[in-house]
Amino acid sequence: MKTILLTGFEPFGGECINPSWEIARALDGQLIGDARIVAKCLPCVFGGALTSMREALHQLKPCLVLALGQAGGRAELSLERVAVNIDDARISDNAGHKPIDEAVIEGAPVAYFSSLPIKAMAAGLREAGFPVGISQTAGTFVCNHVYFGLQHYLRDSPVRSGFMHIPLLPEQAAKFPGQASMALATMVDGVRVALNIALHSGADLRESGGTIC
Amino acid sequence: MKTILLTGFEPFGGECINPSWEIARALDGQLIGDARIVAKCLPCVFGGALTSMREALHQLKPCLVLALGQAGGRAELSLERVAVNIDDARISDNAGHKPIDEAVIEGAPVAYFSSLPIKAMAAGLREAGFPVGISQTAGTFVCNHVYFGLQHYLRDSPVRSGFMHIPLLPEQAAKFPGQASMALATMVDGVRVALNIALHSGADLRESGGTIC
Amino acid sequence: MKTILLTGFEPFGGECINPSWEIARALDGQLIGDARIVAKCLPCVFGGALTSMREALHQLKPCLVLALGQAGGRAELSLERVAVNIDDARISDNAGHKPIDEAVIEGAPVAYFSSLPIKAMAAGLREAGFPVGISQTAGTFVCNHVYFGLQHYLRDSPVRSGFMHIPLLPEQAAKFPGQASMALATMVDGVRVALNIALHSGADLRESGGTIC
Amino acid sequence: MKTILLTGFEPFGGECINPSWEIARALDGQLIGDARIVAKCLPCVFGGALTSMREALHQLKPCLVLALGQAGGRAELSLERVAVNIDDARISDNAGHKPIDEAVIEGAPVAYFSSLPIKAMAAGLREAGFPVGISQTAGTFVCNHVYFGLQHYLRDSPVRSGFMHIPLLPEQAAKFPGQASMALATMVDGVRVALNIALHSGADLRESGGTIC
Repeated sequence: MKTILLTGFEPFGGECINPSWEIARALDGQLIGDARIVAKCLPCVFGGALTSMREALHQLKPCLVLALGQAGGRAELSLERVAVNIDDARISDNAGHKPIDEAVIEGAPVAYFSSLPIKAMAAGLREAGFPVGISQTAGTFVCNHVYFGLQHYLRDSPVRSGFMHIPLLPEQAAKFPGQASMALATMVDGVRVALNIALHSGADLRESGGTIC
Repeated sequence: MKTILLTGFEPFGGECINPSWEIARALDGQLIGDARIVAKCLPCVFGGALTSMREALHQLKPCLVLALGQAGGRAELSLERVAVNIDDARISDNAGHKPIDEAVIEGAPVAYFSSLPIKAMAAGLREAGFPVGISQTAGTFVCNHVYFGLQHYLRDSPVRSGFMHIPLLPEQAAKFPGQASMALATMVDGVRVALNIALHSGADLRESGGTIC
Repeated sequence: MKTILLTGFEPFGGECINPSWEIARALDGQLIGDARIVAKCLPCVFGGALTSMREALHQLKPCLVLALGQAGGRAELSLERVAVNIDDARISDNAGHKPIDEAVIEGAPVAYFSSLPIKAMAAGLREAGFPVGISQTAGTFVCNHVYFGLQHYLRDSPVRSGFMHIPLLPEQAAKFPGQASMALATMVDGVRVALNIALHSGADLRESGGTIC
Repeated sequence: MKTILLTGFEPFGGECINPSWEIARALDGQLIGDARIVAKCLPCVFGGALTSMREALHQLKPCLVLALGQAGGRAELSLERVAVNIDDARISDNAGHKPIDEAVIEGAPVAYFSSLPIKAMAAGLREAGFPVGISQTAGTFVCNHVYFGLQHYLRDSPVRSGFMHIPLLPEQAAKFPGQASMALATMVDGVRVALNIALHSGADLRESGGTIC
């Protein structure tokens, strides 16, 4: 049976829950078409997260990979277009490291595009009633770090891979005035819809998902 | 048996659903302590909405009133502190009216405060994991109109009454890039928690819920 | 000669400059039509600010009063529609006081409207190229406190009075990522335009300046 | 004498002014150290803008290049970290073209980093009192298009080059409620400070300018 690798992160930044992992483990073992989802929890650690990702890729040989990450301040499911070869941390990771302007992988290209059909996924999610957008930056913290490494490891592979940022849970947002959130059930349903499109759609749609600036 | 009046609005502004009414009807008939919730749907019409509200107050003689209204752009449950005696519409209501700088009720005071224990409700909702805030303005459209009328009708009554703005549903927010939303289930649970506090708490808490500007 | 009273505040909240006072003193002594601007600096102190305001009103017998206040987070000149009889501080004032849910003036009404022609001022400023808006809340800190007191003192007077919030200066915004600002020269010019309209226009314009929520 | 190439854009998107060009022409001919600024106005046209940029590089052989672009919605001077090899337009350019998911330059890398000392420039601008930030995305419209082409043309050159997004002018922001702006004089001064740092600083500072997501 084919395998879909779905990763989330452990909590970071003082939180005691990370919705990216809650979504992944809620979908662990479920079927999308003829493929089974396998969920992996990555440490929120520069370097360590990539070691875990590489091991999972090696062990599972997935047909599709989606990495999820928590994005405080965003209100929608956010499909990342591009991963950049830079670590520039504003806060420490869970091992106390705070790299500034270091390459994710020395000698690798400056950036990789997502190999997921992000326009088709955005269109399908929107049609199904999920708030969704194309994002032009995954930041410069551990999310982008993992995303860049993932795209680098699979750069010569036909396996589609990419990254989706997701909002805080309501109980996390409750601690910050005016903060956007999304219910776990909504996010779990949305990720399932997204995986289904990623698995079954052919070439990506050609519709605008850009920003002026 | 005692009655809690919970109002929502019909859809407006081109929407075909209004989460305020979806919440209210989901709770219609449910018990909070020894009081039963009765849901009423108000037209999104200046004047007409107040006629409906007044009839409901007269007919039901509720022990508590909470009016709900949709607030596109807000991310949290939003307890309104003050209702202002002004109608100033940016868009037409559902009857095609667009009043500018008219009094809600001629000869009435400039404003009324909520008579709900909004600080206790905010604290209780936050503790229960709901994103919530105190808002200093309910706008100048039909929501504020209904809120002002409600407070005016009950100005000499011991019955507590007030207004809560609530975010868009995910399927509404899906149409607008970057828009915040909240799942119906989250909002239904939150309103139930809020009503329970409003019904059972005594004097309001004394904790800051203000804004600098 | 007639007098226009233009007030600003001393710095607060850890700042060492307050643009509201910088604007006021830049315009001190200037003529608008046949009236001379007199600038007064108010302490950022509950109670004390109102004492200063009342003394200035008594001493100057102005024909027009505009109070200015700094609004971190706002990007435009912001004409306040309504002052509310509530003090609810998130931070301490400059005397260390932090009132919660106290009346500005016991026994006074819940709110007063601005008696300035705010719609005409907004239209004139916009036409002259200044970012401007009508605001439905002046907050619940010392700005609203002064605004409420001002409107209360002049409640039976034909003298027009009101409040304008103004953005941070660029050098203040430089300390906060993504914060909006406005150059002092722009704000000084804008306040002069606003005062000229307030002094010379008759009844206010009837154009929408409301918000839906 | 050495030459600094400073480019701006013609107006686009229905505007009749573009602050990026107003800044550039205000600085045209001025000296920064021993180098003279030469301003060039680029058409807001995919392809055409790059032709103009390449001609200017060829003709002027500058020692430093800064391209400026208008960023409606941003409140600060925004130093772009990375240019991406993608055109994805939400609106048509000034020639009526609206490319979707096309490469800026076929066969070129996915992205280039700025070769300006953006951390030193941000630190210097902040210290001098200018609102400034590091941005992780220059969008996917003509600004990013020009930025990517510029970095590609100079990829093997020691000449430093990069892109700065700048806010709307107050008179532009006046047309949109709540929109941030910056005075032309502030932006002209800020760009001069930025160019001076770019010309004279050595290796870039090592301080965080990243984002979590």
